[in-house]
Amino acid sequence: MQHYFSNELLKAGDHLELPKEVSHHLSRVLRAEVGDDIELVSVDHVVYEARINEIVDQKVSVIIVNKLSVNVELPIAATIVSGLSKRNKPELIVQKATELGASQVIFVPMDWSIVKWDQKSAKKIKRLNEVALSAAEQSHRNVIPRVRYLHNLADLVTEDFDAKIVAYEESAKSGEEANLVKKIGSLQSGASVVAVFGPEGGVSPAEIQMLVQNGYTTAGLGPRIMRTETAPLYFLSACSVLTELTR
Amino acid sequence: MQHYFSNELLKAGDHLELPKEVSHHLSRVLRAEVGDDIELVSVDHVVYEARINEIVDQKVSVIIVNKLSVNVELPIAATIVSGLSKRNKPELIVQKATELGASQVIFVPMDWSIVKWDQKSAKKIKRLNEVALSAAEQSHRNVIPRVRYLHNLADLVTEDFDAKIVAYEESAKSGEEANLVKKIGSLQSGASVVAVFGPEGGVSPAEIQMLVQNGYTTAGLGPRIMRTETAPLYFLSACSVLTELTR
Repeated sequence: MQHYFSNELLKAGDHLELPKEVSHHLSRVLRAEVGDDIELVSVDHVVYEARINEIVDQKVSVIIVNKLSVNVELPIAATIVSGLSKRNKPELIVQKATELGASQVIFVPMDWSIVKWDQKSAKKIKRLNEVALSAAEQSHRNVIPRVRYLHNLADLVTEDFDAKIVAYEESAKSGEEANLVKKIGSLQSGASVVAVFGPEGGVSPAEIQMLVQNGYTTAGLGPRIMRTETAPLYFLSACSVLTELTR
Repeated sequence: MQHYFSNELLKAGDHLELPKEVSHHLSRVLRAEVGDDIELVSVDHVVYEARINEIVDQKVSVIIVNKLSVNVELPIAATIVSGLSKRNKPELIVQKATELGASQVIFVPMDWSIVKWDQKSAKKIKRLNEVALSAAEQSHRNVIPRVRYLHNLADLVTEDFDAKIVAYEESAKSGEEANLVKKIGSLQSGASVVAVFGPEGGVSPAEIQMLVQNGYTTAGLGPRIMRTETAPLYFLSACSVLTELTR
């Protein structure tokens, strides 16, 4: 069943017109018909079954049939922080992080970032939020991850999380590989975790120092060198294995 | 340090000329100089430190300085089987699977594959092996994963593996999520595991039946729906978490 997000608080029996983009997708791209069912997520993240009862001029109206008891969210709220990286890597990170259950993706210029976003950041973030919405529809999420831009890594350390990790290649060499499992494994359902990933050049010693001084733990993600867009996907998969598959 | 693969059995003290592509990359792209050090992997997967002692007409010669005791391979040999998928997805799967430690990637037409490779398969596989080589250099692997094509999924079941898994969305719904952890967690170092992933349309009931009849276990990869190119990356990350980080 197609899966969409509503901006409204839904309940069974409601009649409503779908948002313009959703109406267009259903009526023009998928050629849906009256009587077809979709999944519609309420602003409170509850998923409802909705039935199309009118299609007029590409405007699609539905009636909310009943609540579906589906929740595909990770038990922990995982935030990915990614140093600005080149080409389409930010898009790939947002798309895959959404599929893998992230609750938030933050992009930030870091010491060894080659690219700069500056004035382009608002436009980039708007586009990346669209990528997140589309991926959230496709992976049937209850929540659309939020994509944000920070002007400076120093702004991150004022934000509060239950567990704070910075992925660091050197950790693999110094036997700190168990840190990730220890940190994630000890989190209760509902807890929050943030993980910082450097750009192509990695995380600078000054950044590591600042993060560690602010309560971040360095953690290795196994012995292989991963590209900047691959490491967050490993991290989110690890969160799933440790909180969904082994509990 | 740059990391390359040799076709020869190396030992400390050896003098040798590097393969043509490696020589070109070092001399023309990186503008390396006599005295620079590289990592060179012997055909027996041992990594050596090598020092450039001559560069003539883009031909680079090295002397093998000493053995490096680095091994970044997964403790288990993981084979990814992927139904033929569209666009650049096979390239992405091979690149990321190499970074995440796969030992082999097999592409096979499946019931619900939309694309066909047929006569193009040899050319595609040649290109995908080049992607694997390049990713293996970048992630400093000891082994270059082998990329193969099978004409038929039925040919797979004659191949021998210690653990055999087929990723199946329905497993998430029926509480079979623990199967992955059970299967991977019970493997000894040196054991082999294969995991089958459907194309965009998924794995057909007939394919599930054939695989299960041949000793494959259906396993869910968490509750979210992942794209065909994302699921193998989750699986390989899970292999790393369960055999490298938690042992």
